[in-house]
Amino acid sequence: MTKTVSINAGSSSLKWQLYEMPEEKVLAKGLIERIGLKNSISTVRFGDQKEEQVLDIADHIQAVKILLDDLIKLRIIKDFAEITGVGHRIVAGGEDFEDSTIVDNEVLAKIEKLSALAPLHNPANAAGIRAFKEILPDITSVAVFDTAFHTTMQPATYLYPIPPKYYEEYQIRKYGAHGTSHRYVAQEAAKILGRSLDELKLITAHIGNGVSITANYHGKSIDTSMGFTPLAGPMMGTRSGDIDPAIIPYLVEHDPNLKDSAAVINMLNKQSGLAGVSESSSDMRDIEAGIKAKDPKAVLAYNMFIDRLKKFIGQYFAVLNGADAIIFTAGIGENAVNMRNDVIQGLSWFGIELDPAKNVFGYTGEISSARSKVKVLVIPTDEELVIARDVERLKKKI
Amino acid sequence: MTKTVSINAGSSSLKWQLYEMPEEKVLAKGLIERIGLKNSISTVRFGDQKEEQVLDIADHIQAVKILLDDLIKLRIIKDFAEITGVGHRIVAGGEDFEDSTIVDNEVLAKIEKLSALAPLHNPANAAGIRAFKEILPDITSVAVFDTAFHTTMQPATYLYPIPPKYYEEYQIRKYGAHGTSHRYVAQEAAKILGRSLDELKLITAHIGNGVSITANYHGKSIDTSMGFTPLAGPMMGTRSGDIDPAIIPYLVEHDPNLKDSAAVINMLNKQSGLAGVSESSSDMRDIEAGIKAKDPKAVLAYNMFIDRLKKFIGQYFAVLNGADAIIFTAGIGENAVNMRNDVIQGLSWFGIELDPAKNVFGYTGEISSARSKVKVLVIPTDEELVIARDVERLKKKI
Repeated sequence: MTKTVSINAGSSSLKWQLYEMPEEKVLAKGLIERIGLKNSISTVRFGDQKEEQVLDIADHIQAVKILLDDLIKLRIIKDFAEITGVGHRIVAGGEDFEDSTIVDNEVLAKIEKLSALAPLHNPANAAGIRAFKEILPDITSVAVFDTAFHTTMQPATYLYPIPPKYYEEYQIRKYGAHGTSHRYVAQEAAKILGRSLDELKLITAHIGNGVSITANYHGKSIDTSMGFTPLAGPMMGTRSGDIDPAIIPYLVEHDPNLKDSAAVINMLNKQSGLAGVSESSSDMRDIEAGIKAKDPKAVLAYNMFIDRLKKFIGQYFAVLNGADAIIFTAGIGENAVNMRNDVIQGLSWFGIELDPAKNVFGYTGEISSARSKVKVLVIPTDEELVIARDVERLKKKI
Repeated sequence: MTKTVSINAGSSSLKWQLYEMPEEKVLAKGLIERIGLKNSISTVRFGDQKEEQVLDIADHIQAVKILLDDLIKLRIIKDFAEITGVGHRIVAGGEDFEDSTIVDNEVLAKIEKLSALAPLHNPANAAGIRAFKEILPDITSVAVFDTAFHTTMQPATYLYPIPPKYYEEYQIRKYGAHGTSHRYVAQEAAKILGRSLDELKLITAHIGNGVSITANYHGKSIDTSMGFTPLAGPMMGTRSGDIDPAIIPYLVEHDPNLKDSAAVINMLNKQSGLAGVSESSSDMRDIEAGIKAKDPKAVLAYNMFIDRLKKFIGQYFAVLNGADAIIFTAGIGENAVNMRNDVIQGLSWFGIELDPAKNVFGYTGEISSARSKVKVLVIPTDEELVIARDVERLKKKI
């Protein structure tokens, strides 16, 4: 019986979860926010208890120290020696990492070098790794990459239709994201369907504040909607998803508030999507409330969201030449019953049909009707668990 | 019996075709190139004859004079009075024009105002109109817009998931293109299928040097792949089609040869697509020759082209919730037998199948097998004829 920590470090935050492995039991979880600012907040949840403290946390090393001290102080563990592994979520793994990997100095250097592809995330992820290495140098440290699952894509898919020098010199290609989630729900789907992943064609739809859809052929990602960055794909909470790229110079030329392409991309990342169109909220629950209140902007935002989702699902039906199942996951995918209904009703020609008794809030598993040619599943994602499992898997290899 | 001219004016060129209407007989056609430059070239084809002359043509007015004089000189007509109508192709009609229209001063002013949306094309189109108005002021002058056919799209489709002010203040939306071609081949498809357009769901694939795919629901365009500009959509001859917009500021920041977003868009429009990936040619015939010669770059370009086409067709299956037929048209669509085969073979799950005896070079009409659930048609497009027909149709209304 060993304990493993899953870490998801952001530029000023650190999300963690402590597991007893291999039982996969969550012992505690927490979030440290405002790292590097005044009045940082550390929250720990364990059993039915919640502890919160406000203090100044200078950096990720101090954040890790506080989280570990809290584990002792709150009697979640008795001794640091109980913790034998830590897994870190890394946003950009580029082409170097096709699977999760034990972190040594070379791996850490590569993660830092890949910061060009994820300037907000990889440096924070690396800081999280360094912090654990300093405080618990002897435990197994594993890096779990958001992009690794998508390294099975073929060049004709991951390359853009532009001159090859932009790939060769500037690494411009599709990397995708949410790989850990897509991998997990595909595995769970195979279990629910009682079939081997090797024989399945799946469309996994991770629909949270970020949205990405993946075409999974026999267990492997062969296409995914996020691209060089997580801006690409369907409409999202605050992101536009794909738009005609020629809009960018047009706005730079015509809108005095958008001085260069970086400013336009910032707008497309942060002020667009559901939030931008509705002019109220990026949260699907607020959009649905707006629809009930007959707010035409909320209706428009919702209709655009459904339209773009349907198009990507249709696209991946073509990429896979048919699919056995569509899997909905993440915040919106797991909970937005109307969204699932409207997407699937619009695909009835494909032989897909929901069971209205199952497409209800809180129900997970298969939600399609018995006669549906393509199964539809709701599977709660669990990226933290995948990270803990990967630590266990790689620990055994040492 | 009247004669009508179809005009397609570019910034330094003027393509024309003379019809006898309503017989729709082509009496002559021609191309004037290098307008405004030294050694302009005017070519006229009639019967089995071809006449070419090289001379300096200063502007579109002079070009129109030469073309009209040639019609007399070559005895194609006896008198200008035989010509009763002229139709002009206009690239950008914005939201103002939902159909072809008789050109008066107000219409001409609007076309010139819409130059912001097509800075290379609309001024040339307007120059063509002015030239005919000056020389033959009394004939019916009709403007036929590339965008008009797509004005039936709904806001959730034509708006981008960005704040509404960019639509309200800067007219940023999807306009689409190739509308004349999509309209024509859909009408022809209905005839071939022996059914009414009102009951058909069609995916029309205009695949030439520019590529656009349209979802046609009961005769109306409900979605199309070109966007605010003709850069959007699948991969094309020299255009990338859709890419992650965040690539633009990344290249501006990292590539010293691309100083701003306009330079990147220029690269995406002119040095990308088949030409950019193959590093040899934008012409599908050259790409196919490259594949035979085992050039891996030609193979890659071809595979990317097929992949992007399949994705848009799959997308529109979702938008239409199924389709009765897919129509291939334009240079590549009409002639690239292997392309059609590879696209359709990848969609066999949809119940689509080609008849190999019919999917051969030079065959037009239905090319799907008898048991194919979705029909596949090859229909040569004829935008010039649509222009001439629109002149006839509107002339009657006067």
